[in-house]
Amino acid sequence: MSLLGDRLCVINVGLSSFAQAIAAAGGEIAEVAWAPPAGGDRAVGLALARLVNHPRIEAANRLAYAAYLEAQPALEGIGPARALLPRMGRRTILHAGPPIEWARMCGPMQGAIVGAVLFEGWAEDADRAARLAASGKIAFAPCHDYGAVGPMAGVISPSMPVWAVRELNGGGLAFSNLNEGLGKALRFGANGAEVIERLRWMAKTLRPALAAGLAMLGPVELKPLMAQALHMGDEVHNRNAAASSLLLKRLVPAMLRSKTSRRAVEEAVTFMAGNDHFFLNLSMAACKAMLDAARDFAASSMVTAMARNGVEFGIQLSAFGNRWFTAPAPLIDGLFFPGYGIADAAPDLGDSAITETAGLGGFAMAAAPAIVKFVGGAPADAAANTLAMGHITLGRNEALTLPALDFAGTPAGIDARKVVDTGLLPVINTGIAHRQAGIGQIGAGITRAPLGCFASAVAALAEALAGS
Amino acid sequence: MSLLGDRLCVINVGLSSFAQAIAAAGGEIAEVAWAPPAGGDRAVGLALARLVNHPRIEAANRLAYAAYLEAQPALEGIGPARALLPRMGRRTILHAGPPIEWARMCGPMQGAIVGAVLFEGWAEDADRAARLAASGKIAFAPCHDYGAVGPMAGVISPSMPVWAVRELNGGGLAFSNLNEGLGKALRFGANGAEVIERLRWMAKTLRPALAAGLAMLGPVELKPLMAQALHMGDEVHNRNAAASSLLLKRLVPAMLRSKTSRRAVEEAVTFMAGNDHFFLNLSMAACKAMLDAARDFAASSMVTAMARNGVEFGIQLSAFGNRWFTAPAPLIDGLFFPGYGIADAAPDLGDSAITETAGLGGFAMAAAPAIVKFVGGAPADAAANTLAMGHITLGRNEALTLPALDFAGTPAGIDARKVVDTGLLPVINTGIAHRQAGIGQIGAGITRAPLGCFASAVAALAEALAGS
Repeated sequence: MSLLGDRLCVINVGLSSFAQAIAAAGGEIAEVAWAPPAGGDRAVGLALARLVNHPRIEAANRLAYAAYLEAQPALEGIGPARALLPRMGRRTILHAGPPIEWARMCGPMQGAIVGAVLFEGWAEDADRAARLAASGKIAFAPCHDYGAVGPMAGVISPSMPVWAVRELNGGGLAFSNLNEGLGKALRFGANGAEVIERLRWMAKTLRPALAAGLAMLGPVELKPLMAQALHMGDEVHNRNAAASSLLLKRLVPAMLRSKTSRRAVEEAVTFMAGNDHFFLNLSMAACKAMLDAARDFAASSMVTAMARNGVEFGIQLSAFGNRWFTAPAPLIDGLFFPGYGIADAAPDLGDSAITETAGLGGFAMAAAPAIVKFVGGAPADAAANTLAMGHITLGRNEALTLPALDFAGTPAGIDARKVVDTGLLPVINTGIAHRQAGIGQIGAGITRAPLGCFASAVAALAEALAGS
Repeated sequence: MSLLGDRLCVINVGLSSFAQAIAAAGGEIAEVAWAPPAGGDRAVGLALARLVNHPRIEAANRLAYAAYLEAQPALEGIGPARALLPRMGRRTILHAGPPIEWARMCGPMQGAIVGAVLFEGWAEDADRAARLAASGKIAFAPCHDYGAVGPMAGVISPSMPVWAVRELNGGGLAFSNLNEGLGKALRFGANGAEVIERLRWMAKTLRPALAAGLAMLGPVELKPLMAQALHMGDEVHNRNAAASSLLLKRLVPAMLRSKTSRRAVEEAVTFMAGNDHFFLNLSMAACKAMLDAARDFAASSMVTAMARNGVEFGIQLSAFGNRWFTAPAPLIDGLFFPGYGIADAAPDLGDSAITETAGLGGFAMAAAPAIVKFVGGAPADAAANTLAMGHITLGRNEALTLPALDFAGTPAGIDARKVVDTGLLPVINTGIAHRQAGIGQIGAGITRAPLGCFASAVAALAEALAGS
């Protein structure tokens, strides 16, 4: 009696057209968000089916994920890219995301490269810089190919200072450029006089001041600092207010103990204290160092990088070293600065999705409810994003805990199989650049990694394992 | 059919003995937490009944609460207490909470006073200092009587530096002493050589360095800084990690621009960077300034101060100026440092409950889920505490918003009538001092203001209004 007497509600798992008939008849429906695996792609779905619970993949993922968990990134130093990046040529410029040639690059990346050419003094004005860049006389390569990462355009030229982060658990070095602040900045494609002037000051004054401070401090472990920042409302991708302050608190007394001039210390402190994103690039280098520890475990489906060049979104898998799996970069419907909208936006751009790859940024949004003022949505969405990412990751990183979720570790270690299986796409908090060169940032928002790269990676893994 | 066919559940509002009979008969019960108003005190209950919706009280509370909301506390300077506190005598020592004579003071307050006597050089050793304190030759008075506040023992002697916070909306000055850091500190009753040495350094080196920085900066508005800290996981009572960093970011460049020696700047920065509670005393002075704006509205039942001397818990009401309404100070069952427990604890102590009086601290716990590691409980309890305080306050302060509660303003402006009516006692996050002099902090926890002070205040208000 009770079953038939009570009001009934239908839970619909599958095609929503089933539910529509019940709704039309006046029934109550709860629809489960569901999509066929691999977005309905039969070949990829079959490939995926062969990889589920595959003993080699499971074993490799356990090793890769453990290596990621054990990694201890420590800020070791700072120096010009040409001195620190192994093999970097004299006329090389690094950029974000997977490889791309000049002609196909998005506006902000071209703008940033023009700025880098001017900063290096390789051309006298923007027109000549663009012609030089198009001439083939400059080598372009992804930052990731040189162990580096850079936010947005991710442009690193030989004279730019880069942070060096060492993985203390037997790993190598990871690098990133320095954060210039918001607004008109090279990484958003701006390249006016003020941008180049600031880059020169960063190379000439900021770099030596920071180097002197770091020399007094010795290596600064970054994971505990990021863990503390997660307890202070940062997700260390688009919100770095706490982490930047924590870094400042370590660096300032050390710079004062060094031989750096008082004037230089004052300038450095004023710059850092005025830039709540200063820590972002270090967060990225730390994440890169943690994920590099998980690289090259044969058969592992763990994602070791997600990066965008403004045209393509690329991922790398532990099993496949530096091989990129790409799909078109999506547009981001975020919060735009006054006067701008999605029609002005460049597609998704930057290496900064390395933070999400490491379980931070969008994956750790539950730690940063206030970020919704910057990227949109409500605080409950922020927590829901973190919880959803638990379905596509290998575990929780108990060294990086989220107070709002009862101090649960952040979900980390994206399993490409789980992304393809569930259709739950990795959430990424990101800035938005104007599509034209020379303008800069116009907003910020939440985006999702495209399914295509994960589908290609899963297909490749199935093929590799079939042949072994 | 549906009512009788469904499973029934009884909601019990009132004595729980009613519910017991239903439970015994196998019924399902939801008990509403309820207690008779005024804890069942008939006289106070009748007094309260005369005050509910009293037009004079409602009008006065609107004015008092608006004055609190409009208050703009700004850090204006720092100087020795004897120079800044009006009327402070040469041999006066201020203490936390309502007035109390030496013989009745708790151990940590006596310990702190002995330390202050040694710091001032009024006695050569602790025994002589204690005898001098007991001799009647030193005047003791509450900090609040001098427009000041001090955490824990709250001891301020004439040579100690105090912050001066001006209320820019036509108000006056509020003062507080400087934070010494955790562990062995005067405010927890410790008075050993290291404690006195640090107090001397603070007076001789830290005070002039901070004064020079503040002179370069001009007034620093504190409410926006506290609002930002609430978005970074502080509740600015027992968690001040973000606010302390934000203050540091303002002060350091300014100190570097001043004529302060590099050595002094370095010492000051090192001290501040190592003390995550450095902002606490400024938070208290800012709250005092905001609440002083709400003072002296005739007939207002808004609480303008809550403060404890380790023996008595006292509150002040807007209607009654500096008059204290007191009850015995409770013991706090918090998180104790290893080796200590509640048997070692002094009862509730300090002026720091001025933060809760202003809607911060325990009232803003929803902003600071990570604080539960320090004071106990789970993050959900922290949010629940904030929500509960909405029932005993006059409104929400939209200048101080809580991200986790969808950016709702923090509940502020305690109405003594509502406390007595609901029995919901103000939640206070607090440190715990050892009951003996000379030892220091032994833990932290969450406590509640005792009903007795609110009951006395309500009775006094009823009497005052009956006679008018």
